[in-house]
Amino acid sequence: MNILAINSGSSSIKFELFDMHTSAPLASGLSESIGEPTSQQSYRLYKSDGSYDELSETIALKNHEDGVRRIAQWLVESKAIKDSSELVGIGHRVVHGGAEFSQPTRINTDVMAAIRQLIPLAPLHNPANLRGIEVTLAEWPDIPQVAVFDTAFHHTIPAYAHHYALPANLAREQKIRRYGFHGTSHQFVSTALARLLDKPPNEINSIVLHLGNGASVTAVRGGQSIDTSMGMTPLEGLMMGTRCGDIDPGVILHLLQSTDLSASEVDSTLNKKSGLKGICGANDMREVLRRVNEGDQQALLAVEMYAYRIKKYIGAYSAVLPHVDAIVFTAGIGEHSPEIRARACADLEHLGIHLDSQRNVHVSSDSCAIHADNSRIKIFVIPTNEELEIAKQTLHCLREADSTTTGRSS
Amino acid sequence: MNILAINSGSSSIKFELFDMHTSAPLASGLSESIGEPTSQQSYRLYKSDGSYDELSETIALKNHEDGVRRIAQWLVESKAIKDSSELVGIGHRVVHGGAEFSQPTRINTDVMAAIRQLIPLAPLHNPANLRGIEVTLAEWPDIPQVAVFDTAFHHTIPAYAHHYALPANLAREQKIRRYGFHGTSHQFVSTALARLLDKPPNEINSIVLHLGNGASVTAVRGGQSIDTSMGMTPLEGLMMGTRCGDIDPGVILHLLQSTDLSASEVDSTLNKKSGLKGICGANDMREVLRRVNEGDQQALLAVEMYAYRIKKYIGAYSAVLPHVDAIVFTAGIGEHSPEIRARACADLEHLGIHLDSQRNVHVSSDSCAIHADNSRIKIFVIPTNEELEIAKQTLHCLREADSTTTGRSS
Repeated sequence: MNILAINSGSSSIKFELFDMHTSAPLASGLSESIGEPTSQQSYRLYKSDGSYDELSETIALKNHEDGVRRIAQWLVESKAIKDSSELVGIGHRVVHGGAEFSQPTRINTDVMAAIRQLIPLAPLHNPANLRGIEVTLAEWPDIPQVAVFDTAFHHTIPAYAHHYALPANLAREQKIRRYGFHGTSHQFVSTALARLLDKPPNEINSIVLHLGNGASVTAVRGGQSIDTSMGMTPLEGLMMGTRCGDIDPGVILHLLQSTDLSASEVDSTLNKKSGLKGICGANDMREVLRRVNEGDQQALLAVEMYAYRIKKYIGAYSAVLPHVDAIVFTAGIGEHSPEIRARACADLEHLGIHLDSQRNVHVSSDSCAIHADNSRIKIFVIPTNEELEIAKQTLHCLREADSTTTGRSS
Repeated sequence: MNILAINSGSSSIKFELFDMHTSAPLASGLSESIGEPTSQQSYRLYKSDGSYDELSETIALKNHEDGVRRIAQWLVESKAIKDSSELVGIGHRVVHGGAEFSQPTRINTDVMAAIRQLIPLAPLHNPANLRGIEVTLAEWPDIPQVAVFDTAFHHTIPAYAHHYALPANLAREQKIRRYGFHGTSHQFVSTALARLLDKPPNEINSIVLHLGNGASVTAVRGGQSIDTSMGMTPLEGLMMGTRCGDIDPGVILHLLQSTDLSASEVDSTLNKKSGLKGICGANDMREVLRRVNEGDQQALLAVEMYAYRIKKYIGAYSAVLPHVDAIVFTAGIGEHSPEIRARACADLEHLGIHLDSQRNVHVSSDSCAIHADNSRIKIFVIPTNEELEIAKQTLHCLREADSTTTGRSS
C-alpha cells in the first residue's frame, strides 16, 4: 500500500514513496534546476533494512511536466514500484490553505481553483505547488490525489490569537490573519511526542520548535495548535537564516519613508538579507557557529539574538498553555545543533526547564530525551518527517472519503 | 525648592510645579489647541492638604511662545510662586534620546542640536518637545533646564535584545534598534515598587505594564530595563487604543504590494485606525468594556486580544528574568480597569501569578497590592507620575552637575 508524497517548488520537485503498512520509505528523490539547461536529479532506493542506494543523473528537464514524467519512469525503472497500480494515492504539499482548508483535501478542479485563489497569500509557493498538482494529475490521472496544507494544523488557533489588531474590514477583505506554517512538521512532531510519552495526543501540551532555515514555534494544547510564531506570512516570529522575524512595524514604515528603498526592496531586505545573514553575513547556522568559535563578535551576537528570541517564545507559550509537558526541538538546527539547544534552554530553570548537557550533546538520529532527571518540563529532540506526515494524511483523507462514500466507518 | 516639569506637544503644553522637599505638587496645568482661534487652558492650584482649586480660561495662544508666557504669568498671578527666582530648575520631557542620551541632560545648544538630529526617529514628538525647550529658554533664560528622555531608562537593554535581525549596515546607518519608550513611567513605577517592598531597587525584578492609550511592558532586572515591548518606534508591542502593536512584517509588505495604500496611508492605518479601534470601533477602553457588557462580540474580541497579548509578554519576560518578584500595573487602564487586570492575570497560576479578585476591584488611588496571599509573584497597582519623575530627575541632574563643578559629592 504505497503513497507518493510530492513537494513541488518553483524549479524543483521532491518526492518520497512510502509503504504505508510500515511507514518505511521505499524511494525518494529530488529534481533540481528544472527549466535550466542542465537539471540534476538524485534518488535513493531503500532496502528493507533501511539502508539505501544513492543514484544521480543529469537530464535536462524543460518543465515540471518533464520532471514528473521522469520521476514516474524512474520509479518503475528502479523497480521501486512495478507500475502505477501500486500507488494508492499521491499527497501534495501545498503551502497556503488560507481560511478554507483545515484538513487534507481530495484534489478536484474546485480544490485546484481554491488553491489558485490563495496565490496572493503565498505568491512564491502556491503557484509552484499547483503546477506540481497539474502535471502529476496529467501523468497519473487515475490515482487519487490529496492536498496537504502547511497551514491546516493551525486552524485551531483561537480568534484572539489569530487576529491582528488591524481595522476589521481591511483584515477581512485582504484575508489578513495568523495562518501559521510548518503545520505538517508541527503535527508530525507533536504526534510523535505523544507516542514517546505513551499518552494520547489530546492529553499532551507541548512547545514545538521547528528550527530549520525557516523557523517557527507552536504552542500545542491537547494535540492542537493554539498559537504559532509565523503569521500571515512566514516572515514573522523567530529569527531565521535570512528572514528578520519579529520586528517593530514602525521600522518598515521608517525604511519606506526615510530611505530610497521601494516596497519590493524592503521585502527582499527583510526576507533575504536579514536574520543570521543580516547580523553576521552567514545564514547557515553551522557556519555561524564556526565563526563564533573563531571569536567573531557579530556571529556571537547573531547566535545570542537567535537563542534569546526562542527563549521569549518559550516563555510566552508557557504562559498561554495551562501547563507544558515537553519542549521539542526539530528540523535542521533543532535536530543537529546542541549549542543552540543549550543556549535556548539556558537559565530557564525557574520555569522548570533543565537541560542535561551530556544528553544534549549525545543525540542519536532517532528521537531523544535531553532533559535532566529533575526537569519538570521534558525536553526532546524529535526528527521531523514532513513527507511521511503528508503520506499519512493522504492515506487518512482517502480512507475518510472512502468511508463517507460507502457509509462504513474506516 | 521648586521644579517645573514641562511636556510640550505639537499643539499643547502640560506643566506641573513641584516642591521637591516634599515631592508635593504646587500647581499644574494644560494649554490645549495652541495655534487655533480659541485655546483652552486649565489649571490646578494645590493646597497643603493635597486638595486643589480648579481654574480654566480661554485665551487665544498663537504659538508655543504665547503658551509658555501665559504659564509664566499664571504661576505668579496665582501665587504658586512669587517670581521665577523660586524655580531651581525646569525639566522637559523629550520623547526620543536615541543612542546618545542615557541620562537626564542639562540643556545647552549642543544638546538641542542633538535632539534636533534625532527628529527622524520621532518625527511627531521631538520637534514639539524642542519647540517647548526653545520658548521656555526664551522665557526663563537664567533657570537651568534639563531634558529627560523617554528612551533613557531603556539604555541598559543588552545588545541581543535591542538589535533587530536586519542587515547590520542598514541598522547602523538608519539608527534602527529597540529604543523603548515610557521610560520615565517605567522608572518611576519600578522605583516606587522597590520602596513598597522595602528593598533597594537593584534587588528587585519586575514586569511593569504601562497600559495607557499607548501601552508598553518592561522587564526590569535589579532596577534596570533589560527588555521592553516598544521598539524603534512606539508602534511595536502590546495592542493599544489605535496602534496595532506586534504584527507580521509580511502583512505590511502585503498591504503595500497588494492594495492601493501608500506607505503613509499604511502608517496612518497602523498608528491611528488599528488596535482596539480597528477591532471594535472604539479606542477608549472604558467604552470598549461598556460594549462588552452590552454583548458586543467585536468589543469582546478586542478585549480578549488585548489581554492575551499582555499574557504573552508576561510569559516572555518571565523567561528572560531570572525570577520575577512582582508584576505592576500602571497608567490609565492599568490603574483603573480591574477587568483588564483580571483578564491579563487569568490562568497564569502555573507561573506563580494569583490575583485576588476582591483586592483587584477595591483599588484605592494609592499603590495597592492585588495578589492573593499564596501568590509567588506579587501583583501591584502603582499610579505612575511621569511629571514627578521628570522633576526628580531634573533635580538629580542639576545636583550631579553642581557636584561635578564644585568637586563636592552631593
